[in-house]
Amino acid sequence: MFLKNCWYVAAWDAEIDAVELFSRKILGVQVVFFRGADGKIGALEDKCCHRLAPLSHGRREGNCLRCMYHGLLFQADGRCVEAPGQERINDKLRVRSFPVVERDHFVWVWMGDPSLADSPLIHDSHWHDCEDWKAERGGYMHYEANFELIADNLLDFSHLAFVHRNTIGSSRQAEVKPVVERLENAVRIKYFTLDSPAPPFARKLTTLPEMVDRFQTYTWNVKSNYFVQDSVIASVGEGIDTASKNAMRVHTTIALTPETEHTTHYFWSAAHSDFNPALEGITRLLTEQVEAAFEEDRMMIEAQQRTISASSEEGMVAIPGDAALMQARWMLRNLIRQETAGLGGRSAASTELERA
Amino acid sequence: MFLKNCWYVAAWDAEIDAVELFSRKILGVQVVFFRGADGKIGALEDKCCHRLAPLSHGRREGNCLRCMYHGLLFQADGRCVEAPGQERINDKLRVRSFPVVERDHFVWVWMGDPSLADSPLIHDSHWHDCEDWKAERGGYMHYEANFELIADNLLDFSHLAFVHRNTIGSSRQAEVKPVVERLENAVRIKYFTLDSPAPPFARKLTTLPEMVDRFQTYTWNVKSNYFVQDSVIASVGEGIDTASKNAMRVHTTIALTPETEHTTHYFWSAAHSDFNPALEGITRLLTEQVEAAFEEDRMMIEAQQRTISASSEEGMVAIPGDAALMQARWMLRNLIRQETAGLGGRSAASTELERA
Amino acid sequence: MFLKNCWYVAAWDAEIDAVELFSRKILGVQVVFFRGADGKIGALEDKCCHRLAPLSHGRREGNCLRCMYHGLLFQADGRCVEAPGQERINDKLRVRSFPVVERDHFVWVWMGDPSLADSPLIHDSHWHDCEDWKAERGGYMHYEANFELIADNLLDFSHLAFVHRNTIGSSRQAEVKPVVERLENAVRIKYFTLDSPAPPFARKLTTLPEMVDRFQTYTWNVKSNYFVQDSVIASVGEGIDTASKNAMRVHTTIALTPETEHTTHYFWSAAHSDFNPALEGITRLLTEQVEAAFEEDRMMIEAQQRTISASSEEGMVAIPGDAALMQARWMLRNLIRQETAGLGGRSAASTELERA
Repeated sequence: MFLKNCWYVAAWDAEIDAVELFSRKILGVQVVFFRGADGKIGALEDKCCHRLAPLSHGRREGNCLRCMYHGLLFQADGRCVEAPGQERINDKLRVRSFPVVERDHFVWVWMGDPSLADSPLIHDSHWHDCEDWKAERGGYMHYEANFELIADNLLDFSHLAFVHRNTIGSSRQAEVKPVVERLENAVRIKYFTLDSPAPPFARKLTTLPEMVDRFQTYTWNVKSNYFVQDSVIASVGEGIDTASKNAMRVHTTIALTPETEHTTHYFWSAAHSDFNPALEGITRLLTEQVEAAFEEDRMMIEAQQRTISASSEEGMVAIPGDAALMQARWMLRNLIRQETAGLGGRSAASTELERA
Repeated sequence: MFLKNCWYVAAWDAEIDAVELFSRKILGVQVVFFRGADGKIGALEDKCCHRLAPLSHGRREGNCLRCMYHGLLFQADGRCVEAPGQERINDKLRVRSFPVVERDHFVWVWMGDPSLADSPLIHDSHWHDCEDWKAERGGYMHYEANFELIADNLLDFSHLAFVHRNTIGSSRQAEVKPVVERLENAVRIKYFTLDSPAPPFARKLTTLPEMVDRFQTYTWNVKSNYFVQDSVIASVGEGIDTASKNAMRVHTTIALTPETEHTTHYFWSAAHSDFNPALEGITRLLTEQVEAAFEEDRMMIEAQQRTISASSEEGMVAIPGDAALMQARWMLRNLIRQETAGLGGRSAASTELERA
Repeated sequence: MFLKNCWYVAAWDAEIDAVELFSRKILGVQVVFFRGADGKIGALEDKCCHRLAPLSHGRREGNCLRCMYHGLLFQADGRCVEAPGQERINDKLRVRSFPVVERDHFVWVWMGDPSLADSPLIHDSHWHDCEDWKAERGGYMHYEANFELIADNLLDFSHLAFVHRNTIGSSRQAEVKPVVERLENAVRIKYFTLDSPAPPFARKLTTLPEMVDRFQTYTWNVKSNYFVQDSVIASVGEGIDTASKNAMRVHTTIALTPETEHTTHYFWSAAHSDFNPALEGITRLLTEQVEAAFEEDRMMIEAQQRTISASSEEGMVAIPGDAALMQARWMLRNLIRQETAGLGGRSAASTELERA
């Protein structure tokens, strides 16, 4: 069960060039992406409407894509404009096409009703390309797990003390109580770990003392599965906004795009402030630390998925720490229910939520 | 859905020797072939009727096959003739057996009702062993695709201009209109590409000029999935039958035997006239060219099968070029319907076709 | 279909140490075993009751097991005794636990109703650790086959002449008639091959003459899938109990524990008398011979399973040699029927059998 009428990150912009065709499965549908001679990205179902050959075995020609089985030529809107040996072209010769928008180095795709695709709904990721933040682009992991298991992890905090005890977490975090706030189609969590030992990655990369204040603010957008974490690790007592320059500020972005019910594309970046100018290669070093932590999650979540697949999801017992993920799951189910019922657009969804 | 009451190529004769047992799945049934002391080939279901151990783990003894689990000995007709420790043998101890005929170096098997098996129904392939034609035997490919997708390809012409543009096709072939003729249980197509650049393989192997006439006559037999192509590439204006000796005449034989619904055995040969006596190793060189072209098909068709398996065969839009394959698919469905309805024999099928 | 209310061998004791956690699937349920600080083995379902993460990715602490996803700590009885950040622990936070007994170097587990678990029901294997017998411990094979196909093999004799003709069998054994006796929940078979050529492994390891008497007594316990073979190979005419010291006495133990419907754990040992003191490394040499024979079985039975999986178990025709395995299959079905009907305990089962 996926929410369809929303934007999903389909790729990093650099993955789609003007030479090769790029095929990726999104919400269970194989999509071929190509960059036309005009630089614009087209997205078509990767299946020719004639005999169902994959268009990704085809060839870009101008702003079009040619199927290299029987030679049909398609525009980015899916219309067939040339069929070898035919004078007239049947109007039914059309491939499904998908709205695409490039923004902040992400390629966003809309898999639902194209008439509802509205680019202002796309989430902001301006830190991928601005002066205040430094970030590597291109972070990607393939997950052998349903996207909700990953979302659960992003909305949980106690696991920092166990899964990430050697990287980005610290044992004291198991006892901190997060504050969960409900926004429109989003959940925000504030998780402040005060006067506590710095996590291993901060000890490696910063000039901070052993005891620190850590301020983590998470925002999970149920539409788009789009996650942003603002994290500040500062000397004790300095405060979030007033912390010195050596406070470690990191802006972690994660977009989860379902590939299938049991696999997920995980796009990510970790943008940071200039908290330790003396440290050479700081962006690479930080990226490595975050990647190691994400691998720790992946090991656990894929194992969890295997356990669930081998039996079922039945028998989960909730604990108080599950509050945030429960909110998010409830919101998503509500939105999917509305979408399935055909209430569709944003305003209907909002109304429903206000009544709830 | 397979047609059962017809002969299928099961193997090349050289695949079945007097030492090893040979097991191959045909129409979803695992069959063990063995060559008896008398030189005759036996074909039994590869499953002992006692505890279902595979007979291919057994041992040939004379004209019989012994299961090496509990020692039961079977004749080529499937009857158990020895069971260790037993005086009397239960008449039910029988393994399913299949009619087999060796002809023109092909081993043909009949998977349907044995009482309908009639060897005159076997298609002619005398060019595997005669003076006028030179051919390598043993051509075999395993396809991860349903046999009908391969048949579609054999009955289509526009793909020559795209899939085979670097081997046996030429771009001009996309525009040629084939003539499709309906025979009894067969489709014949004439596809003449006149005054056109020679395809790459002809340029490599012949002494022909750059511009040629190409005459291709395809016959697809719906029973047996048996395909023969007569191809003549000659200097412009010479005609099919009156062409000079340097005209390239090739007789391509293909037999498609379903292994399962999604996999197929592809037996093939390319017999040729002596069109370029000066070229050493001409048979090998031609075989390599044809094999390369068949690999091009396989890449595309297996990709097409994966696309279909991932979603469904729904949504195909026919174009005028599909006329021949549509005829063949219609004939096959008709024959399967008759077979399932128990109309069985050849005459019933013919009557039905005449009425249609 | 498995019998649940009985003990199954889960592991050799040495497989479960105090450092690593040990996870194995038993009757379709993934179970994590751990040895507590007190040396006792705990067995829990390998699935945390919170979010279903595998406990085998966790950590032993004292006599408890901690889930390393969110840090819940469980006792060997399955109760959660610590949840980070929580003062009170929900009584529903419980993982399924299984009774475990260590005896004669086997670790036995009870997968059914724990209230029926009764350690006197555990079969004797004292020869794993006593003066009269020498044995290697740790014999284990993983079978890609249903346990009943393996049981069939253990209860059959004619295959010794075919499958094991180069190891532990001899061709004359195909004709011997076994005596089958029915016990409570067990089948006993006496299989005496008199005045017959010694099997290859006896020729390699003993000082016996070429012609021997061989006395094989098999006991198959339907509960626990527990098999013991007493085998004596002696000079002709000496008799089972009165044979000389150079008679080869072997006590073969096999326990089949279903992993899934199509895979099985096969625990085994071959304990022997001191029949050839001059032969160095006799225990190793004998173990190698037995292992080779068990591999011969495995090759055949896994092939048989593949054949059955590809079609079905239908169409088996019984022969007189199947008497013992038919008895065992009948007993097992009867016990499973009673268990499913809730008759459960031992006395009910016995009553039913007596009536039958």
